[in-house]
Amino acid sequence: VDNHDDPLPKYTPLQSASQIDVARLARVSQAAVSRTFTPGASVSDETRQKVLEAAYKLNYRPNAIARSLIRKSTRIIGVVVMRLTKPFYARIIREFTRGLQAHGYWTLLFDIADETEVNQTLPMALQYQVDGVVITSATLSSKLADEFARTGTPVVLFNRYASTGKTHVVRCDNYAGGRLVADAFLDAGHQRIAYIAGEEGSSTNQDRQRGLVEGLQARGAQLWQSAAGDYSYEAGYKAAAQLLQGPERPDAIFCADDLTAIGAMDAARYEFGLRIPEDLSVIGFDDIPMAAWSAFSLTTIRQPFDDMVKATIQVLMEAIEAPEAPPVNAVIPPSFITRRSARLSQE
Amino acid sequence: VDNHDDPLPKYTPLQSASQIDVARLARVSQAAVSRTFTPGASVSDETRQKVLEAAYKLNYRPNAIARSLIRKSTRIIGVVVMRLTKPFYARIIREFTRGLQAHGYWTLLFDIADETEVNQTLPMALQYQVDGVVITSATLSSKLADEFARTGTPVVLFNRYASTGKTHVVRCDNYAGGRLVADAFLDAGHQRIAYIAGEEGSSTNQDRQRGLVEGLQARGAQLWQSAAGDYSYEAGYKAAAQLLQGPERPDAIFCADDLTAIGAMDAARYEFGLRIPEDLSVIGFDDIPMAAWSAFSLTTIRQPFDDMVKATIQVLMEAIEAPEAPPVNAVIPPSFITRRSARLSQE
Repeated sequence: VDNHDDPLPKYTPLQSASQIDVARLARVSQAAVSRTFTPGASVSDETRQKVLEAAYKLNYRPNAIARSLIRKSTRIIGVVVMRLTKPFYARIIREFTRGLQAHGYWTLLFDIADETEVNQTLPMALQYQVDGVVITSATLSSKLADEFARTGTPVVLFNRYASTGKTHVVRCDNYAGGRLVADAFLDAGHQRIAYIAGEEGSSTNQDRQRGLVEGLQARGAQLWQSAAGDYSYEAGYKAAAQLLQGPERPDAIFCADDLTAIGAMDAARYEFGLRIPEDLSVIGFDDIPMAAWSAFSLTTIRQPFDDMVKATIQVLMEAIEAPEAPPVNAVIPPSFITRRSARLSQE
Repeated sequence: VDNHDDPLPKYTPLQSASQIDVARLARVSQAAVSRTFTPGASVSDETRQKVLEAAYKLNYRPNAIARSLIRKSTRIIGVVVMRLTKPFYARIIREFTRGLQAHGYWTLLFDIADETEVNQTLPMALQYQVDGVVITSATLSSKLADEFARTGTPVVLFNRYASTGKTHVVRCDNYAGGRLVADAFLDAGHQRIAYIAGEEGSSTNQDRQRGLVEGLQARGAQLWQSAAGDYSYEAGYKAAAQLLQGPERPDAIFCADDLTAIGAMDAARYEFGLRIPEDLSVIGFDDIPMAAWSAFSLTTIRQPFDDMVKATIQVLMEAIEAPEAPPVNAVIPPSFITRRSARLSQE
């Protein structure tokens, strides 16, 4: 029965009906009413529908805020992000939001422009007594993560290090990814292998570069040249233009992420008229959706981010249950995705 | 002074220090302590630093949850989204999160997979007594938006209609955008103008298509053909392949959004070997960052989403102050962004 066209009940700021009232009107048990309003609890669609209709008619609204004071759990997870506009992070936030919802937790989202803003934002975040925190940004200070841990709020760092070793970490093996690229370029006989960096201070960038450099050295080769970047299309474009303008050019470029690689490809093609991969091989990192677009067909190192998000949520749930357990350090291997932007065999 | 290397104070679940204790230790006024922990309140960096250090030493944490019960305001805004992985929505969520933070509000993020999930998610969202709700998804039922409004929680629909007219709306003039495209294609003498749709039921798609069709009719022309889509690269690719495979081909395609247009361009170039814009003109909608990439250089209709987000936050803030004020319907004009994917003058 659709009663929603009836005149709307007036808004009553005070709780006007009890769980028992709702159960009686819906002709279900009080436990069924409780389950309907408990995140993650099991209840049949039919029962839920009955409860919601009765709750609607009675204007019943359980008060999560008051309840959270009693059970000392808000069922809110704070998620801190610095680069939500990047395709990689947008997808990650979505997976976190959906994954946490499936566990009965909501996502309170904090977007930090830079590290100086962290000092203003996180103390206020703590006021909401979140049950846990995920920090997805690559360049957040470990000190602040430790401040959260000190208050007894579990923190999981997503794809970055805790230099102190006091917080949980879930990350991709970025170093191994760099080594995969070194081997692939050398196997194909590339001679002048360059690197376009991500943000200099980030552990992700440092590990990818170190993996490449040490992978080359392990086979008696050297990094030919490198250029600065910041994990953006624009920086990749600019860095590639700089690398390609000299009399001698790189024949292969490893880019710190896919956006950088796409920028580098566009510069190579549209500024220098180069063919990819005939004149220049490009490999990225992440495997964002755009990497698969025909315009790029980007060979890349895939971060297994679905697994990383699942692992992060699992670590967080376990830490909420057992706050005294020692920090987890989960490292998940990346994989090599072959498309058409890199020559991978000897000519 | 950096005291963070001292042994960490033990976690005390109960409030162990008062605002007065913190003020005394920091040698500031109690009002300064209060302002430091009030979102949006003004306090100098120096004072904030003193207060935070004292608060850290005393393990002082003001309890936002308890405070929200007293002042009946959680300073949390629920933001509902269906397509966070799309570049357009990722940027919008970021702007909302940052814009709301600047007003002293936090973002509780709800990701809805489809409309059936709404019934399970939103009743629980209401439990958190959010101060307001923004619904950014294009295809959420008006009925559910009305349910929020009924509880006295202001709701702003972002870029969609309220068929009931009971909720606030901030949107782009999608119809006007469609008309801009019709005029641009006709001015250049295009003969066979096609449309690749977004999600069929969405008002954004319907308005863009209607703008195109009526813009053509107003000048005695007709829509040559249209194909179904769903606001994705893959659908754009597939739809373009379908439009282009016949003996007679469109010479211009308007795509319901930029992702669709990029997919259509890739299909035209890499499946059919067509040159853009010599053989085919393509225009998109949104102006996502990828539209400016050299690979696409996509001519498009820009949604003024910074203005739209600002207007949405303003409407929300006013509605929180004056819940009884009549619904606002703000329509913001789009603009035509000329790049190189469409021939715009007579040959």
